[in-house]
Amino acid sequence: MSPRIVEIREAILKKNDLVARRLRQVFADAGVYVVSLVSSPGAGKTALLGETLRRLAPTCRVAALVGDLATDHDAVRLRASGAPVRQITTGTVCHLDAEMVERALDGWDLGSLDFLFIENVGNLVCPASYDLGEDLRVVLLSVTEGEDKPEKYPTIFATADLAVITKIDLASAAGYDDVLARRALDGAQPDLDVLRVSVKSGLGMADWFGRLDAARAGKRTGLRV
Amino acid sequence: MSPRIVEIREAILKKNDLVARRLRQVFADAGVYVVSLVSSPGAGKTALLGETLRRLAPTCRVAALVGDLATDHDAVRLRASGAPVRQITTGTVCHLDAEMVERALDGWDLGSLDFLFIENVGNLVCPASYDLGEDLRVVLLSVTEGEDKPEKYPTIFATADLAVITKIDLASAAGYDDVLARRALDGAQPDLDVLRVSVKSGLGMADWFGRLDAARAGKRTGLRV
Repeated sequence: MSPRIVEIREAILKKNDLVARRLRQVFADAGVYVVSLVSSPGAGKTALLGETLRRLAPTCRVAALVGDLATDHDAVRLRASGAPVRQITTGTVCHLDAEMVERALDGWDLGSLDFLFIENVGNLVCPASYDLGEDLRVVLLSVTEGEDKPEKYPTIFATADLAVITKIDLASAAGYDDVLARRALDGAQPDLDVLRVSVKSGLGMADWFGRLDAARAGKRTGLRV
Repeated sequence: MSPRIVEIREAILKKNDLVARRLRQVFADAGVYVVSLVSSPGAGKTALLGETLRRLAPTCRVAALVGDLATDHDAVRLRASGAPVRQITTGTVCHLDAEMVERALDGWDLGSLDFLFIENVGNLVCPASYDLGEDLRVVLLSVTEGEDKPEKYPTIFATADLAVITKIDLASAAGYDDVLARRALDGAQPDLDVLRVSVKSGLGMADWFGRLDAARAGKRTGLRV
């Protein structure tokens, strides 16, 4: 990149960080726990989020923001859970930024929520650089996309708080090697927390819900989980 | 995006188009047919390219450029075919541009090649805007990533010359619906050419090689295939 582009990019990121810091304070004041999901297109963010909203909705106050270049398919699909869902349509922009999130939250009573989920645009590169003020950044890696992705897209795996390996029901058909995946994840971020789930079969989903509960409880009591 | 960013982005794209036009002329003068591959991370670009180089190398003069943020894994993997392969490492940049391609080609005798393949960074958003001077832009969609991707990432499917649906051996395990995929592809670009392949089982690969041969022959004779 040219020096001019680098300079402008840095200014944008600085501005984003200011807005993200403001958002983080708003979330803390409201007592809402915010989880963002990032991954390749098709790694299963919407499937995981749909099941999460459906399962949490009866006992928790949950809501979601979902980002896409075009269409409101994900929002429509997710509203079937009964949870409030808003779509952020980015056009040609390859990631969500903190300002988009702030605008999308306009008029929502965050104090009435326990969890807010933010599903980013499917992209393993650009979302890595944008803090959204979230408490927990979750990166998904599906068993069908190759165990080497954390090595090839290191920043997004280095900046996540938790990795969720998805579509584990397809592991055998896809020839997935968990040892290779774990090694690649460690290369991007040693000791990154990893869960393995299949939304389809339900495998590992109890761990996922346990992790969400513990993380939220940890935030409320000031403990990091 | 702010007006300033839009303006800068347009200037970058204009500059890219100038370099791409120059590249296209260089490729035409050298008589090399250039195929670029774009897709999500893990849709199978490197697997398809590896098999393509391996199968073409005995009868054609083939070479490849491969883009990644980090690591030269793909180049190492592809060199096993015996074809010359160069890696373009983009750092945090989410796509290849024409200048990167031009620099990477420095010193290569393009006149000694029949086919040059360019594998882009795995990303369904950013590569869509950058012409690389290629003759044929191929977008891959794996059966595991969801049939709706052409609707959610329309630009990259609208600007491709050919769509290749990959990992067709996993179609049944993944619950893939070809009618839905075809409908989504038509939504992005009506009548887009579509092939269905499995590098693993070999299904559809003859069609792929037939398409490459026909396209190259069409360029040489001035016919569009």
